[in-house]
Amino acid sequence: MCRWIAYTGKPVYLDTLVTKPDHSLVVQSRHSQMNYTTSGELLSINGDGFGIGWYDKRDTPGLFKDDLPAWHNTNLDNLCHQVQSHTFLAHIRATTTGDIQRANCHPFGYKNWLFQHNGHISHFDKLRRPLQLKIAPELFPLLQGTTDSETFFYLAISYGLLDNPKAAMQKMVREVLQVLSNFDKDGVLNLSCAFSDGRKLYTLRYSYNEAPMTQFVSNDSGCLQEFAEDKPQIPAASTIIVSEPLDNISDKWTKIPNNSFTTVFRNEVTTERFLDD
Amino acid sequence: MCRWIAYTGKPVYLDTLVTKPDHSLVVQSRHSQMNYTTSGELLSINGDGFGIGWYDKRDTPGLFKDDLPAWHNTNLDNLCHQVQSHTFLAHIRATTTGDIQRANCHPFGYKNWLFQHNGHISHFDKLRRPLQLKIAPELFPLLQGTTDSETFFYLAISYGLLDNPKAAMQKMVREVLQVLSNFDKDGVLNLSCAFSDGRKLYTLRYSYNEAPMTQFVSNDSGCLQEFAEDKPQIPAASTIIVSEPLDNISDKWTKIPNNSFTTVFRNEVTTERFLDD
Amino acid sequence: MCRWIAYTGKPVYLDTLVTKPDHSLVVQSRHSQMNYTTSGELLSINGDGFGIGWYDKRDTPGLFKDDLPAWHNTNLDNLCHQVQSHTFLAHIRATTTGDIQRANCHPFGYKNWLFQHNGHISHFDKLRRPLQLKIAPELFPLLQGTTDSETFFYLAISYGLLDNPKAAMQKMVREVLQVLSNFDKDGVLNLSCAFSDGRKLYTLRYSYNEAPMTQFVSNDSGCLQEFAEDKPQIPAASTIIVSEPLDNISDKWTKIPNNSFTTVFRNEVTTERFLDD
Amino acid sequence: MCRWIAYTGKPVYLDTLVTKPDHSLVVQSRHSQMNYTTSGELLSINGDGFGIGWYDKRDTPGLFKDDLPAWHNTNLDNLCHQVQSHTFLAHIRATTTGDIQRANCHPFGYKNWLFQHNGHISHFDKLRRPLQLKIAPELFPLLQGTTDSETFFYLAISYGLLDNPKAAMQKMVREVLQVLSNFDKDGVLNLSCAFSDGRKLYTLRYSYNEAPMTQFVSNDSGCLQEFAEDKPQIPAASTIIVSEPLDNISDKWTKIPNNSFTTVFRNEVTTERFLDD
Repeated sequence: MCRWIAYTGKPVYLDTLVTKPDHSLVVQSRHSQMNYTTSGELLSINGDGFGIGWYDKRDTPGLFKDDLPAWHNTNLDNLCHQVQSHTFLAHIRATTTGDIQRANCHPFGYKNWLFQHNGHISHFDKLRRPLQLKIAPELFPLLQGTTDSETFFYLAISYGLLDNPKAAMQKMVREVLQVLSNFDKDGVLNLSCAFSDGRKLYTLRYSYNEAPMTQFVSNDSGCLQEFAEDKPQIPAASTIIVSEPLDNISDKWTKIPNNSFTTVFRNEVTTERFLDD
Repeated sequence: MCRWIAYTGKPVYLDTLVTKPDHSLVVQSRHSQMNYTTSGELLSINGDGFGIGWYDKRDTPGLFKDDLPAWHNTNLDNLCHQVQSHTFLAHIRATTTGDIQRANCHPFGYKNWLFQHNGHISHFDKLRRPLQLKIAPELFPLLQGTTDSETFFYLAISYGLLDNPKAAMQKMVREVLQVLSNFDKDGVLNLSCAFSDGRKLYTLRYSYNEAPMTQFVSNDSGCLQEFAEDKPQIPAASTIIVSEPLDNISDKWTKIPNNSFTTVFRNEVTTERFLDD
Repeated sequence: MCRWIAYTGKPVYLDTLVTKPDHSLVVQSRHSQMNYTTSGELLSINGDGFGIGWYDKRDTPGLFKDDLPAWHNTNLDNLCHQVQSHTFLAHIRATTTGDIQRANCHPFGYKNWLFQHNGHISHFDKLRRPLQLKIAPELFPLLQGTTDSETFFYLAISYGLLDNPKAAMQKMVREVLQVLSNFDKDGVLNLSCAFSDGRKLYTLRYSYNEAPMTQFVSNDSGCLQEFAEDKPQIPAASTIIVSEPLDNISDKWTKIPNNSFTTVFRNEVTTERFLDD
Repeated sequence: MCRWIAYTGKPVYLDTLVTKPDHSLVVQSRHSQMNYTTSGELLSINGDGFGIGWYDKRDTPGLFKDDLPAWHNTNLDNLCHQVQSHTFLAHIRATTTGDIQRANCHPFGYKNWLFQHNGHISHFDKLRRPLQLKIAPELFPLLQGTTDSETFFYLAISYGLLDNPKAAMQKMVREVLQVLSNFDKDGVLNLSCAFSDGRKLYTLRYSYNEAPMTQFVSNDSGCLQEFAEDKPQIPAASTIIVSEPLDNISDKWTKIPNNSFTTVFRNEVTTERFLDD
């Protein structure tokens, strides 16, 4: 049960979205106002690690992750103040599966790709082995942590993410659902993911046997104004997608429907149906 | 704005109080139900470090501290499961002054003494220099962090804590109040401290220009039962003092009055008036 | 390329062996005088994490591990000063495979068992998948890190470590050798392990296609005297086994032969041939 | 006993100097070939923290520091691969005074200034109080750690570093020497510092009662070639100053004399005598 934001457009300093707004991702890490409950438990804290992944001039993206709370993190504050990026992901973690360790923090990176995830799957402890066996053997040694999220990412790569992201995600979800329903036909899968190759930004919203996680998009340059006293603007022709609407929602934000695959390229947001069945 | 517990009596495993109860100190570190607001801000998380200090067979106490959240901390869980102690302090931190670093975590240790503190003083940044100048020069090099709490502890040692704890604390508070009121006569001092030499356990509850922090004591062996499903007993003839009553209060707990100095020795709890003026 | 010690006998404070001697394990973590070179590289630092595992009164052992250097670690110093144990393992890590993370630090724990390892296997990245597939499916979810050592431990458990340690280790080594030699018949396996159920202490020394790691044993109560100015004694009727002889070797230490399986029980040290073929 | 590098010139990626060369600063953190001994002790490891401070487009510099070894640090590797800077400092720490904590890591930052230091002063524990009392009271609350280096930095700021760096450093050194010699006329002061406002780069080399630390400068674009197999060039018209000559020295490097104050501005290196007496 994590939180994330994803941005693509004109280069901005990361602090514009990650640390500065009064209801920024980092502020949300301490107390949020949505998604408080999952199976009756209070989940108001995302203190189990954080990460930022950003594209700048290098072939591969930058990645800064730590297994500490995002709040009061001087390195994170400082870095977000310095780093500009045209396309970046940022994530705060509340563990559902997997220990508190850097290897379990998002975003995950592979070559020029970044991936981050909010959600969960039932019985991951039991399903980890059969799911990881489906990962391409040459990718298996790259597994560093113990999360469902990293497993989903390497499955998607195994199924062709680099060539056809939507088809690879469809195959990944279908394979995961098959393994899950073989084990427990009432099992839950819930995915709200963002990923990118540095050129296009993609998100997936899909749930099975449970109400879906939220996902919101905006390319209104005033979409942050209600969250920050200094009324920041994001550049025109830029797009933000968030797992939660930075705590408050206004008509500047559009809810992305469940069972959808979204592609953002040059400020054009295309949302398609994800799975037909 | 931290939380702490202190125990003295028959040796118990630390997990009995620190990690096992459903409303244990560690559970409280994630969401508490009291003291939510100080100057209007939500303070529901104590994720800025933790510490345990315990007396066993050695001349000096054990001390395990880290600048991480207490929740999901495998080392802390494991240690509390192994370590038995007749007298121990445990603390979770929500920073008011001082960075997130181990040197700012409680309890603080000096020779055979341990000290932990919940509270704050106005303008500590401004008062740090005049207050630290009053610390005995030979103790000054021992300052490792940047907190008001560590400063109060070394001031008290400078004023004779090892020989006469109550008199030293009185002098410490009077000196601090003088420095504070010289700077701002409306300034606030709020102290809820626990400290020990391994033989006696002491606590102080004192506030100036503000409602005092809470402090509760129990030597009822059933005092934990409402907090834990497995209805743990603490040994007979043992005493617990807590900064918050493990979230819920029952008649097994006694509120310690403000402006009081408490001494626990061989299960006898003596609460005296602290400052007369 | 790590270092470890293992002790069983009369309870001692851990600092006697881990932190106090002038050539203690912690001192060795900064500069060692043996095993400097493996494939031509200088390996004088074991700064990639440490761990101690000890048996006291609980059913399961204590375990304190961190992914930091052992030197200057106040928590480790403090803990080793407080904790007494009749049987304990201690380890400092220099990474060969696996990231710097707590989950890759030794000793590894399972129920009442502890396991630590010095050594390596060729091509572990490539062999990780086929080796981990041989782990019992119900144990697979317990894998937390990415080391060969943890893989060997869970393989041994899968093959009956809890019931017959020697037979389980034999089967583990045979299976590993088969996977290895299928991939590269010149591949290297080198194992110097210590493990315990809290009652008996076991070590294994085995190498394939390479000169074996060292392993030394002593139950001479003066065996530490040449390493520490204050001439500490270990209790009579106690046994120490070390991966390196605390830097210097004297006739108080016995070299354990290669291809051997050692059992220590009530101060009796039995060394048997490990694999016949 | 630390190590540092400082660069100013055409923007380069930090990895060019910090992490990539075969004898880069990070490689040096594991085993160095100079300055092995200070007062007879082996000092081959700089594993007590690291930091990089860099100037890019913001008014204040970026700063990334951690109290971990620099080697195997994925965040540091990654950041140095992404970040470009025209002027930067980088430091690896081997503690002489001050605990292992981020607040004791270099570079230290104040407004647009960065400062890093290699060296030591005798009896710092004893001198810390009288030295810190000389820091301007309004700067005192900014002290975060316990090092001589941070104390020297805030003393220099107190004496006008921002307006006249050389005069401020002269006054700082004179005041420190006075406090030191009052306490012990045979006491040692050894300073090899680099500092910058983002426009000019300064270094100081000064020692008292001891052989000075080394300091080397180069603006030869081939000065790195002997340290890295891929023969990197630094841009023409750029300057590097290092506390140790990246392990090997060639005629492309010039030794900076003791008792000197160096200013680098637009690739012009000016070295002046520091103290006349």
